[in-house]
Amino acid sequence: MFKSALKLIQCSLETELARRNASTVGFIGIGNMGTHMASHLAKKIDKVKVFDISAEAARSVKGAHVCSSLEETASNVDVLFLSLPNGDIVKDTLVNKGVMKALPKKSLIVDTSTIDPKVSKELFRLAEENSLRFLDSPVSGGVTGAEAATLAIMVGGNKTDFDSIKPILHYMGARVVYCGSSGSGLIAKIANNLILGISMIGVSEGMNLGIKAGLDPKVLHDVINSSTGRCWSSDTYSPVPNIFPNVPSNNDYKGGYNIKLVVKDLALAETTAVNCEVPVPLGATAHQIYRALISNGYGDKDIAAVYKFLKGAD
Amino acid sequence: MFKSALKLIQCSLETELARRNASTVGFIGIGNMGTHMASHLAKKIDKVKVFDISAEAARSVKGAHVCSSLEETASNVDVLFLSLPNGDIVKDTLVNKGVMKALPKKSLIVDTSTIDPKVSKELFRLAEENSLRFLDSPVSGGVTGAEAATLAIMVGGNKTDFDSIKPILHYMGARVVYCGSSGSGLIAKIANNLILGISMIGVSEGMNLGIKAGLDPKVLHDVINSSTGRCWSSDTYSPVPNIFPNVPSNNDYKGGYNIKLVVKDLALAETTAVNCEVPVPLGATAHQIYRALISNGYGDKDIAAVYKFLKGAD
Amino acid sequence: MFKSALKLIQCSLETELARRNASTVGFIGIGNMGTHMASHLAKKIDKVKVFDISAEAARSVKGAHVCSSLEETASNVDVLFLSLPNGDIVKDTLVNKGVMKALPKKSLIVDTSTIDPKVSKELFRLAEENSLRFLDSPVSGGVTGAEAATLAIMVGGNKTDFDSIKPILHYMGARVVYCGSSGSGLIAKIANNLILGISMIGVSEGMNLGIKAGLDPKVLHDVINSSTGRCWSSDTYSPVPNIFPNVPSNNDYKGGYNIKLVVKDLALAETTAVNCEVPVPLGATAHQIYRALISNGYGDKDIAAVYKFLKGAD
Amino acid sequence: MFKSALKLIQCSLETELARRNASTVGFIGIGNMGTHMASHLAKKIDKVKVFDISAEAARSVKGAHVCSSLEETASNVDVLFLSLPNGDIVKDTLVNKGVMKALPKKSLIVDTSTIDPKVSKELFRLAEENSLRFLDSPVSGGVTGAEAATLAIMVGGNKTDFDSIKPILHYMGARVVYCGSSGSGLIAKIANNLILGISMIGVSEGMNLGIKAGLDPKVLHDVINSSTGRCWSSDTYSPVPNIFPNVPSNNDYKGGYNIKLVVKDLALAETTAVNCEVPVPLGATAHQIYRALISNGYGDKDIAAVYKFLKGAD
Repeated sequence: MFKSALKLIQCSLETELARRNASTVGFIGIGNMGTHMASHLAKKIDKVKVFDISAEAARSVKGAHVCSSLEETASNVDVLFLSLPNGDIVKDTLVNKGVMKALPKKSLIVDTSTIDPKVSKELFRLAEENSLRFLDSPVSGGVTGAEAATLAIMVGGNKTDFDSIKPILHYMGARVVYCGSSGSGLIAKIANNLILGISMIGVSEGMNLGIKAGLDPKVLHDVINSSTGRCWSSDTYSPVPNIFPNVPSNNDYKGGYNIKLVVKDLALAETTAVNCEVPVPLGATAHQIYRALISNGYGDKDIAAVYKFLKGAD
Repeated sequence: MFKSALKLIQCSLETELARRNASTVGFIGIGNMGTHMASHLAKKIDKVKVFDISAEAARSVKGAHVCSSLEETASNVDVLFLSLPNGDIVKDTLVNKGVMKALPKKSLIVDTSTIDPKVSKELFRLAEENSLRFLDSPVSGGVTGAEAATLAIMVGGNKTDFDSIKPILHYMGARVVYCGSSGSGLIAKIANNLILGISMIGVSEGMNLGIKAGLDPKVLHDVINSSTGRCWSSDTYSPVPNIFPNVPSNNDYKGGYNIKLVVKDLALAETTAVNCEVPVPLGATAHQIYRALISNGYGDKDIAAVYKFLKGAD
Repeated sequence: MFKSALKLIQCSLETELARRNASTVGFIGIGNMGTHMASHLAKKIDKVKVFDISAEAARSVKGAHVCSSLEETASNVDVLFLSLPNGDIVKDTLVNKGVMKALPKKSLIVDTSTIDPKVSKELFRLAEENSLRFLDSPVSGGVTGAEAATLAIMVGGNKTDFDSIKPILHYMGARVVYCGSSGSGLIAKIANNLILGISMIGVSEGMNLGIKAGLDPKVLHDVINSSTGRCWSSDTYSPVPNIFPNVPSNNDYKGGYNIKLVVKDLALAETTAVNCEVPVPLGATAHQIYRALISNGYGDKDIAAVYKFLKGAD
Repeated sequence: MFKSALKLIQCSLETELARRNASTVGFIGIGNMGTHMASHLAKKIDKVKVFDISAEAARSVKGAHVCSSLEETASNVDVLFLSLPNGDIVKDTLVNKGVMKALPKKSLIVDTSTIDPKVSKELFRLAEENSLRFLDSPVSGGVTGAEAATLAIMVGGNKTDFDSIKPILHYMGARVVYCGSSGSGLIAKIANNLILGISMIGVSEGMNLGIKAGLDPKVLHDVINSSTGRCWSSDTYSPVPNIFPNVPSNNDYKGGYNIKLVVKDLALAETTAVNCEVPVPLGATAHQIYRALISNGYGDKDIAAVYKFLKGAD
């Protein structure tokens, strides 16, 4: 008990130190994810400055100061968060649009965008050249996780920078993991999502096959989940409707992990695979299956809609 | 406590009744699996008669009576177990070689072979026409599971037949599941193994990608296992050597689930998929990847050797 | 000139001899293909007896004698043609329904059905045991080719049997090729159609990619057809509408090589591949893509409709 | 005859005009391809200046002036050719290393490198901004084609620029095709090679299947080449050894289209596919198969070695 009290004190101390290290925070990119993430920060941090190309989006973050330019957002912050759609935009924002130049020396950039690790490593180097610090910190858990502050956050960069910001990241996420040197957070997320993209199709194929061959869906679901086919897609998600509560399949595959995001992540996995010269045969096929879904009208559905696509019309 | 005592009595009673229902048992097919399965039966059942085309193999089952013909094995048994390599041999044995004719009326055939569900359903019908009973009862767990009597046994056929034999099946297996009408045990096994065949490659691709991109194997392993990529292949097996204890990857992929068996099971999955007219795109690709492994010298390795194949020479 | 006159005389002689060898011919299976094939025979051969489970279908063959039973069709013929949907039906017809028993000794069975070569070889052996002769003679060219008597006919079995029937086969087909021992005709057709199934998707992907990336369809078509991407699917068929005259793509993919037949042929290719233990990775993926087309409403379209599926809605 | 004489005169005139338009030519990148291409130019053009980071390589071009810097190579030329390994290097050379700045106004850049069309379009725009002209002109035919001046050259950019340089391109290539606006040459090449990458595997699978199933290789080869499976890979190349003369398969797959180049081209196809949001399911699988070949020691073999990989050890 004494030990856990000590632990508690230590945690509070770390959080306090982190809070002081980040007494002024900037946040660029107030989209579906950013609005929730920035709001969580604004509840606990003295000064949060936000920017988005849509001023209306920026105004959605309660308690935050809305900036009128990137430069204003970057100036005088201890930490700058980014939540942007892709690597080109992140690079353009930091380099061409002058954010790196506007940031105070030694300030910390925390990029929560999911981008090519190669680009992220380049930005890490550029940050160092500009006497800045940089962490890649992609998140998992979707809009729901962002809203509930239960995101998983995978971080790459210098360990000391990670330690200094970890308590702040916990304002937004439930699980905050240090994965290694620059790019490692992104690589971990990409590798994980590659496996997810594959196993979701695997479970969909297996369930569809068994059900079409005459098995009761729940019986099959139970067999798989107590056997070697068990995976997150089968024991937590279920692409087959009405077997499991509270999953997108029950709601015509609305919400969840959008297929347009799935193909974005799988494309990053393939780019990384090409750069590292490793084969990803099922990942590549899975990627193409999701692309074929988009061609056939499933682009705005949850990843599990691949089950419906394979099953076909009733 | 009283309730659990009652439960215990009931279980014993069921086992006793099952034992009486199966006081004489035949077992055809004393291979790698059959030798252990028949041995477990011989320890607990009054009379176990065994047959194999290799008399030497048949003699490996201690306490069993070695028969010199199929006919002798089938005559006067209550239950006849089969453990044979494929559906052609099962059908040939039961139909052409006269085993169905030699069996006493009402006796129960329990086919533990992994074969095409369509063939199994045909044998179920033929059994009925001959006043016999038939269960498809494929097993999972490999030679290790057969030896330790920890197999998973998935059963299809009439529920009353299942109930009557369930306690006996528990002599050989830890988990005994009724899956539905004739063929259902096979379909459940096939659907599960399809998913396993896919997710093992998925985990291998994701781990190989992450490691080649610079991540520490254990860090990546932990990220995946607490995230959406988690599956049996990642949290219980690990295709990457030296992350997890007691798995074939640590021992140059010896033992475990042989790739020649993997392609057998995936071929059955595809045959079933064709018969049911369902697409199994990743399953088909996975099947082909394992076949390419066989072409390249990996045929006698464990399923997880796909990691080594993708990784390539060091 | 003298030489070519001699050649002509020899051809006529062979045809005459063949005609005499086949002065009475039976034809079982008057479907979409059989109706045209039998009609061509009936124009040139003295006595053609036809049978179909639909008497109406059988009556569609002008100049043929409609039989009321399989037995009647088989009795007293020199040659018996079969054109049936699958191997189970061919085997059932010849073996269980007594056609082999009813045929005169030494008569020749010519099976034009596309079935598993393994089953065909078994029927060849059974024919030999019954003092009959057997050729596998699958055809290519579809209903159009059957009607125009321009089919390609690939034949397996004994060379002398092939030589004796070759001129008769030319009544139905433009190209008649001896491929080797029993089963070889089927294997050749299956191997060819495997390649076609793959290259049609290949051309569709390449054309779709180029066009979506901004190229003029005809320019790209020309580049490919004078370069290394050239194939029958690109230089004779064109899955892209309105580039080439008289192809199904111009007519919303009606007619041609039906996708339900494509998956039948690719399933046979995979069965053969499994039996021979060879990997067919792209063939398996192609097979699954066509199955996904069927799940999404393209089952009755021509093979080239895969272009439309990949392209998606406009 | 008069007409063809006129045509000849016109051609000579165009060539003469082109020669004058390109009286001084630069060539950057004297690799396996560049050395032959630049040599052909040096034979017919007054002044050819060459540069490579390896001065020794540069000196291999007879009759050319070896430059000691990029700047020297670019100054005072009418046309500048590039033959470089990838888009990053092309961009770095033209933009960061100052070649665009060093080139005379209105001079023409002809980039024969195979790079991402998106990057090429960006370079086209930058060229325009710098009052320069830019053509993407990737080549097909390999080192053999470069040496024999029989390359196929696919060109994208402004038609007038194409017309002005076409006769010069014919010094190096047999077929010179205008494909459309900037990027079109690359897109055409990429789309073609995507189909080739797929059909080479298709032919390898079909031939391997047929041969393993018992067919004579030459018989099968002939059947395919007079049927719907026919393609460049089957009628001109043959991945099966000793069927066709003068192909890499006869020489243990030495020479030809190196698998490391194949995966480079297929990676570009996938990048382009992702940018255009089109599915390329077989292309992606083919890409991965070639990557698996590299992992298993086939990296320096010709594309047709996929046949050997599928076939496995004898």
